[in-house]
Amino acid sequence: MSWSELIIFLHVVDYLPNRVVYGGSVSPALTNPPAKRQKDIEIPPWTPPLNQLLSLTHRQSENPSPPESRFTPSFLIYSAIVTKFKIQRQGSGGDLPQSGEFNPFPVARRVNSFQAVAMDDDMEGGIYQERTRTFPNMRSKPYSPLIFRLLMRINTRVLLVLLLCGLGALFYIGASTSPIIVFVYSVCIISFLVSIYLTKWVLSKDEGPPEMVQISEAIRDGAEGFFRTQYGTISKMAILLGLVILSIYMFRSTTPQQESSGLGRSTSAYITVASFLLGALCSGIAGYVGMWVSVRANVRVSSAARRSAREALQIAVRAGGFSALVVVGMAVIGIAVLYATFYVWLEVDSPGAMKVSDLPLLLVGYGFGASFVALFAQLGGGIYTKAADVGADLVGKVEQGIPEDDPRNPAVIADLVGDNVGDCAARGADLFESIAAEIISAMILGGTMAQRCKIEDPSGFILFPLVVHSFDLVISSVGIFSIRNTRDSGIIGAMEDPMKILQKGYSVTIVLAVLTFGLSTRWMLYTEQAPSAWLNFALCGLVGIMTAYTFVWITKYYTDYKHEPVRTLALSSSTGHGTNIIAGVSLGLESTALPVLVISVSIISAFWLGQTSGLVDESGSPTGGLFGTAVATMGMLSTAAYVLTMDMFGPIADNAGGIVEMSQQPESVREITDVLDAVGNTTKATTKGFAIGSAALASFLLFSAYMDEVATFAHVAFNQVDIAIPEVFIGGLLGSMLIFLFSAWACAAVGRSAQEVVNEVRRQFIERPGIMDYKEKPDYGRCVSIVASASLREMIKPGALAIISPIVVGFLFRVLGYYTGHPLLGAKVVAAMLMFATVSGILMALFLNTAGGAWDNAKKYIETGALGGKGSECHKAAVTGDTVGDPFKDTAGPSLHVLIKMLATITLVMAPVFL
Amino acid sequence: MSWSELIIFLHVVDYLPNRVVYGGSVSPALTNPPAKRQKDIEIPPWTPPLNQLLSLTHRQSENPSPPESRFTPSFLIYSAIVTKFKIQRQGSGGDLPQSGEFNPFPVARRVNSFQAVAMDDDMEGGIYQERTRTFPNMRSKPYSPLIFRLLMRINTRVLLVLLLCGLGALFYIGASTSPIIVFVYSVCIISFLVSIYLTKWVLSKDEGPPEMVQISEAIRDGAEGFFRTQYGTISKMAILLGLVILSIYMFRSTTPQQESSGLGRSTSAYITVASFLLGALCSGIAGYVGMWVSVRANVRVSSAARRSAREALQIAVRAGGFSALVVVGMAVIGIAVLYATFYVWLEVDSPGAMKVSDLPLLLVGYGFGASFVALFAQLGGGIYTKAADVGADLVGKVEQGIPEDDPRNPAVIADLVGDNVGDCAARGADLFESIAAEIISAMILGGTMAQRCKIEDPSGFILFPLVVHSFDLVISSVGIFSIRNTRDSGIIGAMEDPMKILQKGYSVTIVLAVLTFGLSTRWMLYTEQAPSAWLNFALCGLVGIMTAYTFVWITKYYTDYKHEPVRTLALSSSTGHGTNIIAGVSLGLESTALPVLVISVSIISAFWLGQTSGLVDESGSPTGGLFGTAVATMGMLSTAAYVLTMDMFGPIADNAGGIVEMSQQPESVREITDVLDAVGNTTKATTKGFAIGSAALASFLLFSAYMDEVATFAHVAFNQVDIAIPEVFIGGLLGSMLIFLFSAWACAAVGRSAQEVVNEVRRQFIERPGIMDYKEKPDYGRCVSIVASASLREMIKPGALAIISPIVVGFLFRVLGYYTGHPLLGAKVVAAMLMFATVSGILMALFLNTAGGAWDNAKKYIETGALGGKGSECHKAAVTGDTVGDPFKDTAGPSLHVLIKMLATITLVMAPVFL
Repeated sequence: MSWSELIIFLHVVDYLPNRVVYGGSVSPALTNPPAKRQKDIEIPPWTPPLNQLLSLTHRQSENPSPPESRFTPSFLIYSAIVTKFKIQRQGSGGDLPQSGEFNPFPVARRVNSFQAVAMDDDMEGGIYQERTRTFPNMRSKPYSPLIFRLLMRINTRVLLVLLLCGLGALFYIGASTSPIIVFVYSVCIISFLVSIYLTKWVLSKDEGPPEMVQISEAIRDGAEGFFRTQYGTISKMAILLGLVILSIYMFRSTTPQQESSGLGRSTSAYITVASFLLGALCSGIAGYVGMWVSVRANVRVSSAARRSAREALQIAVRAGGFSALVVVGMAVIGIAVLYATFYVWLEVDSPGAMKVSDLPLLLVGYGFGASFVALFAQLGGGIYTKAADVGADLVGKVEQGIPEDDPRNPAVIADLVGDNVGDCAARGADLFESIAAEIISAMILGGTMAQRCKIEDPSGFILFPLVVHSFDLVISSVGIFSIRNTRDSGIIGAMEDPMKILQKGYSVTIVLAVLTFGLSTRWMLYTEQAPSAWLNFALCGLVGIMTAYTFVWITKYYTDYKHEPVRTLALSSSTGHGTNIIAGVSLGLESTALPVLVISVSIISAFWLGQTSGLVDESGSPTGGLFGTAVATMGMLSTAAYVLTMDMFGPIADNAGGIVEMSQQPESVREITDVLDAVGNTTKATTKGFAIGSAALASFLLFSAYMDEVATFAHVAFNQVDIAIPEVFIGGLLGSMLIFLFSAWACAAVGRSAQEVVNEVRRQFIERPGIMDYKEKPDYGRCVSIVASASLREMIKPGALAIISPIVVGFLFRVLGYYTGHPLLGAKVVAAMLMFATVSGILMALFLNTAGGAWDNAKKYIETGALGGKGSECHKAAVTGDTVGDPFKDTAGPSLHVLIKMLATITLVMAPVFL
Repeated sequence: MSWSELIIFLHVVDYLPNRVVYGGSVSPALTNPPAKRQKDIEIPPWTPPLNQLLSLTHRQSENPSPPESRFTPSFLIYSAIVTKFKIQRQGSGGDLPQSGEFNPFPVARRVNSFQAVAMDDDMEGGIYQERTRTFPNMRSKPYSPLIFRLLMRINTRVLLVLLLCGLGALFYIGASTSPIIVFVYSVCIISFLVSIYLTKWVLSKDEGPPEMVQISEAIRDGAEGFFRTQYGTISKMAILLGLVILSIYMFRSTTPQQESSGLGRSTSAYITVASFLLGALCSGIAGYVGMWVSVRANVRVSSAARRSAREALQIAVRAGGFSALVVVGMAVIGIAVLYATFYVWLEVDSPGAMKVSDLPLLLVGYGFGASFVALFAQLGGGIYTKAADVGADLVGKVEQGIPEDDPRNPAVIADLVGDNVGDCAARGADLFESIAAEIISAMILGGTMAQRCKIEDPSGFILFPLVVHSFDLVISSVGIFSIRNTRDSGIIGAMEDPMKILQKGYSVTIVLAVLTFGLSTRWMLYTEQAPSAWLNFALCGLVGIMTAYTFVWITKYYTDYKHEPVRTLALSSSTGHGTNIIAGVSLGLESTALPVLVISVSIISAFWLGQTSGLVDESGSPTGGLFGTAVATMGMLSTAAYVLTMDMFGPIADNAGGIVEMSQQPESVREITDVLDAVGNTTKATTKGFAIGSAALASFLLFSAYMDEVATFAHVAFNQVDIAIPEVFIGGLLGSMLIFLFSAWACAAVGRSAQEVVNEVRRQFIERPGIMDYKEKPDYGRCVSIVASASLREMIKPGALAIISPIVVGFLFRVLGYYTGHPLLGAKVVAAMLMFATVSGILMALFLNTAGGAWDNAKKYIETGALGGKGSECHKAAVTGDTVGDPFKDTAGPSLHVLIKMLATITLVMAPVFL
């Protein structure tokens, strides 16, 4: 026996005790090692003969022969020898030469859990050294976006000068418009500076050991690659749509006001298209920023979790806070800049020119651009994240029996990428769009009301939403900074519940929000015509804030396993998959009732508060009702930045957990990230409730804004949508149907894309049999690109449906109306379509989100050990529910939020088509 | 060893080879024998020691000890002895004494299928005689309804004289009203005579061997017992509601017309309550008749299936036809009698009295009574049938591994009872209500239009729906009789496809419908003011007939496994339970699109045809639009009796299959009933499509009728429902929410009731261990009564929600409107609630029905051998889908049809509350 042969033999011995001898039976242990037996064994790369031998035996697994025949006689001889000699190795792993490539870092010994001890007992006391399981070169291709590369090339001083000049111009234009605009600018710029501080703070944290960095880079590359392709597609569609809008506006008739103010067709067309493109661009930046920080913060959170739970929490919160401030700040400053520019450019309020109260109507393009991008971002991201998740689970967990986030699963990086593109980027775009749409519709309603009531200076009513959200930036920053790195001993037990820490911050923000909201109503909405109106509107804001609170509470009640509904759902899993699904569907459908009642009460009470505010129109009838609901919506969104922070926290913690898991950190580190991940799940669920509530309120505003706009364009009063007219009723029917069809296509898209992932992962396991033994590197990049292209392809169909169907319906009924002598038929049918779609959309989104969340948590509840715990039949049924819930709660549900508002903005922009 | 000990020993040997020795392992074989090993072994009751021993071992299974410890040492000794001696028994089963109590009928030897042969091979050629598996005294308690017992006591001649007097009075009143009424009476009475002929024909068929009769009697007792209790509850609620209506109408204001015609408050109140109670009674009778014939026809179909497939088909069709003719005839004659009675009583059209065009408004109570009973019948029946089905399957199929309809399952009779009370009785009440509501709303709209157009004799327009449905009775009878017992060789292969035979009959009916519809429009709707109007209305009818056809086609496309959608769904089962559910939900949601488009096109085209009919009001504007959609609805329902026949055919065939299975008929007989059952599933699914289409059209009519009525009561014009008003929008939101909540509660009710069945069946298997070996009789009656009481309890919550919520919402907003100065607010909010609920209800019902049907057929498709066939993982996933689909398609979905129309009729009747 030569030296090399001896070494091979010893390594075989090193290998076999786990894989073959202790496995009991040969065949499954090698192809599919049971989780209990998993040990960190690796064979150094300098033992080619064994590698060849093993790869030979593995390669035969491609043949359709039964698994037993995969093992060559020589292999069985080895195992027979080992069994006979019963070689006991104790701690010899450390003596073996370590490959610099495989294990270049200090070995992180895993703290033995009870299970690990049990395993060792099982193995006759043999202790094996555990080594990290990472793979080299996870990074597929480095990428930095074009704009950054361009910026890098410019001289810093030139850049600074350009920036200062831009700022100066902005402030000059702002100052010529209104001091309020200057205030808004200042707050936004300060909050940008704060967010830069937050980034610097986050980026100053260490990235941890290189194996973490490797994984993080792979995630970053995947996310940025997808983002680039996705936004490439979206920007092409946006430009195309911009051209369509341009041509429509070129051929439309102008309003009398516009004519009188000299705002010709072409000016109006350029304005709309420019706002649309700016909205799309800002939405894209908002999404990018959300993702940019999350792919950088995740590894830092993982690294910090090795030291202290509190620090990890703080990093995640500050990273989330950074993108939240940028998203909200961008929405506010974008609208403010457009407003001020148009104000100065069109010489608004000068004699013979446009009135300031008509100005907000020119901004609708911005809202449409934002919601257009958000729809595709949410659809594409949602399909991406859930296709990767479902696909990875189906092959990894179910077929191969390897745990979640296991580095051997080729789809694991795609799954982690999905968190970033699906949750961070998409939710950023979603809330950006919510805030933008809500600000614009509130400005339109404020302007209309001010005009009706003949208020001397309507700019207070028009600019009120911008001020509210400027204060939102301030108070949310306070909330974010209230979460500090104190009283932390680094031990998990000594740490406060992270949920409590986050909620404490939320309470601080809420209290400040009530104060600043009262302040801003007094400042902006005080008018001598109705001296107590501001108080009524402040109460409207309070209604909104309370609605947000109640929504969060209801979502928690239906999705948290501390409460009855999820426990009943978990119990129904004990009689099988079918009863679990029936119970989940009933739970989801039932959960729509309370939010609808809350929304109804808050709309009516805000409307009533507005009506009784004392503001009356020329004929003396009260007019403040609609603006009251607008103020309530603002109240609901007045803590948006903090809520978004909590939401962004979720995927960052989730990713950090994945990195910790993949880089084989000790149990104690994983416990910390697990706790943070669980908290993130709750905050994500509650943010969805918040988002749907604000969508419900905002869409009613947008609907009113649409009617105002139609009336302006059509030169006739348009203040009712009579569903007793058959065509209008049919519009409603089509609107509700649109929601059902959109949800169907979104869910089906996830199913189809997941199928592609399944096929790819199966293929890799067959073609690269070494993956299972950490001998071959799975092709993560291929999975990432397959999910990316599948989700980009699949997002087109539902997205196009959402955009095209209202235009087609409006146009068809306009033609029908033309022939039957009803000039406003198209606009009315679209209005009904919008209303019915909104109602059905709210209910459907509530159903999908809640059912999905409840299934997820029912599974988690069982995993805590209830009803048989992990691995029981009950758990399997609960996993089925969770799989069903995935596309419900992360693809179809959130896309519906966006869809509701996009329908409203598209009808606003496309109104000329229907007339 | 004494003789008795020897006999015991031999029986142990008889027992063990199947249960223990061939089972491989002891523990699962006894408690849960694998299906493959099941043999018809029974231990005569005169072997107490073994019985005691076995029951001892079984009883220990209640302890929480591991399953291995259930087996006492003595038991294991027995098995050890048997294993050691390896006693081979060949054909000895026949030599054992047969208990007269257990096997009272000639033994029906089962034709060995391939599987049975394979089993025997497995058992080393041992052939066991198979014995029938029925139990004596299945009939729990005989019951004949009170009315029949009373009628039996009266002298036949007296009865005949009374009947003739009644008929004479009817015809006298009818003749004083209009010759059309006389025509309607005659047709209805002739069709009742035809239906009596059909019953006599069906009842003249033999009931087959006594074991079939036994089972059939058990089903009959269960169904009639449930019906009695259910309708007892419903009648109490109806009387209570009648009193509520009475008190409401006593305190309401009267319309000017009523005042001028001397129709006081109390008269109006009594009229409404009387119509309500008559409608409820007729609906109850319609449901009872449907069930009465189906529980008698099922056994005759089973018996006929032993002789000839064609004869079985004919019996099922004629039994279905009987109840269809009675249901439609009752709806028509009930309304005709009320109309004629009110006409004569109130001296309508005499000077100073009520106008004939206002008369139909007095009939709304009849529609409400019908839909009230139908809602509870459908809810209770739907919960009953699916709770029994799901519960029986969960324990029987999944836990115990016994086949469907196995007599050992204590819930099997409850399951078969469910087909009768859930499908026959409930669908009878459902279609009765559809037709009644549609006739009344069309009469109201016809009257309103005739009045507006100042047509001299409006009775043609008012009575048109009655004539259409009279012709329906005639042509459907022709269709039913076209299915005759010819060209049948009795062999399944030689038989025509039953679906084709049924469709041939449908084609005959459709062709006749087109002809008679044209005829009746020419007869009834010809007016000199617009000579070509009848032609337009005939085209409207054609639109309706085509809509019905298209709906049936679309339903078939989405639920038949010959087409793409179900095949894709089946394919998605191959990746697991989760993907199957996702795909099914997407399919169901997607399937709403086409029907909505069809409904939209047909409403618009019918409306347009009506508008251009040439009928104009005083101001010269066209008014026929709404009546056009009404005529289209009538066209859709113009073949209702034949469609109902096809629908009733389904549960009768299903029951016949169950009886054949339970009474152990030969394979060839089961093949025949299986084919009929499969056809019945298809016709059931398509009828649901038909029902939802007609509900969609009818609800729009009812909505218009509601607005007419509100306008009449409120003395002001009420012709628009403006959803731009916040309160009205909220009404819509609440209406849609009502649909979601109702569906949630209906599904959850099935889940909860099924859980009770599961517990009861489990309890019986534990307490009566002999059931599994046919030694003890399962307590079928207990399961029947448990399901009955559970479903009666569970139907209250969703039913009460449906009835109370529109009243509460209307009343609350009426009060709110009173304080905010909007007198019609309550009525408007209710109108919006109604419209949104209708739209959401149509979509939700389409979703639930189609998803349920598709899951069912995807399972059936896999059972044909595709994708791994029965028993594969794919099949298990498909079974999960089927279980989920059960409450969707048979409880929540059909209840929604009824709910939509009940909401419309309740708002019509309760309108005074909202004003």
